[in-house]
Amino acid sequence: MKKLITNVALYQDHSIKEGKNIAFTDDRITDFPDHPDRTAYDEIIDGNRMLAMPGFVNTHNHIAMTVFRSYADDMQLMDWLMQKIWPAEAKLDSDIVYAHTMLGIAEMIRCGTTSFADMYFFMNDVARAVETSGIRAALCRGVTGITPNAQEALAESKEFYHTWHKKADGRITVMLGPHAPYTCPPDYLRQVVDLAHELGAEIHIHLSETKGEVQDIKEQYHKSPIALADELGILDCGCLAAHCVWVDEDDLNIMARKHVRVAHNPGSNFKLAGGIAPLGEMLKKGITVGLGTDGASSNNNLDIVEEMHLAALVHKANTLDPLVIPAETALQLLTEGGAKCLGYTDVGKLEKGYKADITLIDREGLHWYPKHNTMSLFAYSANSFDVDTVIVDGKTLLRHKAFTTIDIEKVKAEAERTKEKLLSQLD
Amino acid sequence: MKKLITNVALYQDHSIKEGKNIAFTDDRITDFPDHPDRTAYDEIIDGNRMLAMPGFVNTHNHIAMTVFRSYADDMQLMDWLMQKIWPAEAKLDSDIVYAHTMLGIAEMIRCGTTSFADMYFFMNDVARAVETSGIRAALCRGVTGITPNAQEALAESKEFYHTWHKKADGRITVMLGPHAPYTCPPDYLRQVVDLAHELGAEIHIHLSETKGEVQDIKEQYHKSPIALADELGILDCGCLAAHCVWVDEDDLNIMARKHVRVAHNPGSNFKLAGGIAPLGEMLKKGITVGLGTDGASSNNNLDIVEEMHLAALVHKANTLDPLVIPAETALQLLTEGGAKCLGYTDVGKLEKGYKADITLIDREGLHWYPKHNTMSLFAYSANSFDVDTVIVDGKTLLRHKAFTTIDIEKVKAEAERTKEKLLSQLD
Repeated sequence: MKKLITNVALYQDHSIKEGKNIAFTDDRITDFPDHPDRTAYDEIIDGNRMLAMPGFVNTHNHIAMTVFRSYADDMQLMDWLMQKIWPAEAKLDSDIVYAHTMLGIAEMIRCGTTSFADMYFFMNDVARAVETSGIRAALCRGVTGITPNAQEALAESKEFYHTWHKKADGRITVMLGPHAPYTCPPDYLRQVVDLAHELGAEIHIHLSETKGEVQDIKEQYHKSPIALADELGILDCGCLAAHCVWVDEDDLNIMARKHVRVAHNPGSNFKLAGGIAPLGEMLKKGITVGLGTDGASSNNNLDIVEEMHLAALVHKANTLDPLVIPAETALQLLTEGGAKCLGYTDVGKLEKGYKADITLIDREGLHWYPKHNTMSLFAYSANSFDVDTVIVDGKTLLRHKAFTTIDIEKVKAEAERTKEKLLSQLD
Repeated sequence: MKKLITNVALYQDHSIKEGKNIAFTDDRITDFPDHPDRTAYDEIIDGNRMLAMPGFVNTHNHIAMTVFRSYADDMQLMDWLMQKIWPAEAKLDSDIVYAHTMLGIAEMIRCGTTSFADMYFFMNDVARAVETSGIRAALCRGVTGITPNAQEALAESKEFYHTWHKKADGRITVMLGPHAPYTCPPDYLRQVVDLAHELGAEIHIHLSETKGEVQDIKEQYHKSPIALADELGILDCGCLAAHCVWVDEDDLNIMARKHVRVAHNPGSNFKLAGGIAPLGEMLKKGITVGLGTDGASSNNNLDIVEEMHLAALVHKANTLDPLVIPAETALQLLTEGGAKCLGYTDVGKLEKGYKADITLIDREGLHWYPKHNTMSLFAYSANSFDVDTVIVDGKTLLRHKAFTTIDIEKVKAEAERTKEKLLSQLD
């Protein structure tokens, strides 16, 4: 299938050019013809008044946790986990996870997201939802070394890799998901590293999310979580590290040297009172950073455009530097930075040969007026509800805000049904 | 006109009750009948699946500055003001201000805002736009003591008060608007206080927005901006103080004692790298706080729901206290707190005898699923695009997201036309 997006504002090479055309064949961008022969295409997508962005990337999620959205808020972290989340997670099943993964995927697509990284369990159900919906994802089975099923979870990770890696037309890649150094003792992390080398899999892990976690790890191992992960070889596997809120100069140097890719999750870090990550410092060191929502239970939405706003705004106040995250940096975090975080080499830019993962943004909302600077308007004024069209792997998943692969009313009904089922088991 | 909103989730008395009805006659709420006689009403508004909130209040704006949205971003504050904003403001006229006030009002209504506080110039044009659009506003002519027109601006303020205070069916109230202690020397502020007493007018002022401003004032007057304003009598007039980012314990005690009402503007404070205000401390002292966007040129939208998210999220991270601004506090800031900031005694709550300023929120978006807790969903998951219906003073200004008093295409065209006119004068 040859498709053409016409007369669109194109974000490319760090600037936005008006009146461009984007041609793609099947899953890949082929050209940006100035004078396309419209009869040569199977489908013409009118991009008039739209901004074409590389599809947005959500670099850290536990997507099925949408089932816990608004279930428990305004609590201390450990109370929240021990009293509410962990007991409820013990009652999850394949049915609940699939339903809420579909809900989360639909919400992410609605927000312009074309790929995401996920760490959870019942991952076969997550993968099925990714396959069905048409989105792109880097998935991992979350594992911990301190639970009775530690070895079983590793075996599942291996099986999950063999079953799903590069499947769904290559839209699914599989990573390994050791939860964090505070839940995975060194011996267990070494097992993960061995498995990663055996499979050639990359690693997705939580590192240095809270001040308390870093203090505990330092007391126990006399080094920071970053240094510990480095010592154990985690950072040599290709590592997506979520959070990295409490990292010092030494940590940042290790992260830069080992090409750690950081999932920056401002909404979740703020809501859980984790803190404010040194995003500006990371970028100065040349560290690759993308944006993530984390699970909807600690955010409480999967709106990656809102995460971009948070990243663009809050670090300015926290550093008292209005230039620390300029508009263009915010756009890069949302797209190319995120794609690199997930290990993609042909996603995250609108370039010839890249995957046709494209988000079209309607620029006709009141907040897009008057029109001085499109990049500023997108970074600072836009809303996820401006997303009009979402294309993944060359296929249109959302057009004029309507889903093409997902029955939204069914998704909402299934979310409610399975949520009620879960609650009935918790009474 | 007797109107009835039926079968709605009602935010009242710090909780949300399902399946309620709201009756209002003309501009005032009359009752919450359990079994209303539908034939007794001139209009029935179906509230099914909606959440009825007191209309949102935007406590600090320079609304005509929408003309500068995306005009100049990612600059140091003084560069931004001196190189871009002030030269352009010198070229503003009545036509440009009216067009961009209408644009800003439309955007605010779209976001569920039913009243706002504004400080700018060409205020007769702002008042005309308020009158025409049907929104409620507390307006003031911004004045500075260090410009050649200082006395003229005071005279204009007085005239503006007499012309517009309690006009437009009482929807417009007029305050005095001394810009800030760093632009209004003590003698000038004393003149403002005298005029306030003469008119019985309240005062809207910027206080302690940046660290540098507080340092400068302390060097010059050996006291903080808050203490200086107190000494000069500003705080005895009924005072809406915007920002209050850099306030210490002594300042907070003065503010509490003098019943200063604070316009908290997280988006603007963050974007301009002003800092993070001690919101939790203010609330602990019992200080009245509302939310504001500030002008669109330093935000860059007028989305008060986004401000609520920022306020609900960022202070948790900044204080490392997940309980500092719980969901219900966020809702209070958005509604009752804001209304008190503007000096209203019959706005900000859905109570019998209060003004019928009501915002209905659609709860059918994906991010409203699954449904555990409506208050949490609104505080942490909602988007301003969930706003379905906006009623001010008993009149419907937005219904199913369509404007009833504003021609949106004309507003956008006028914004572009007058923006181009402004730019042509700056070449």
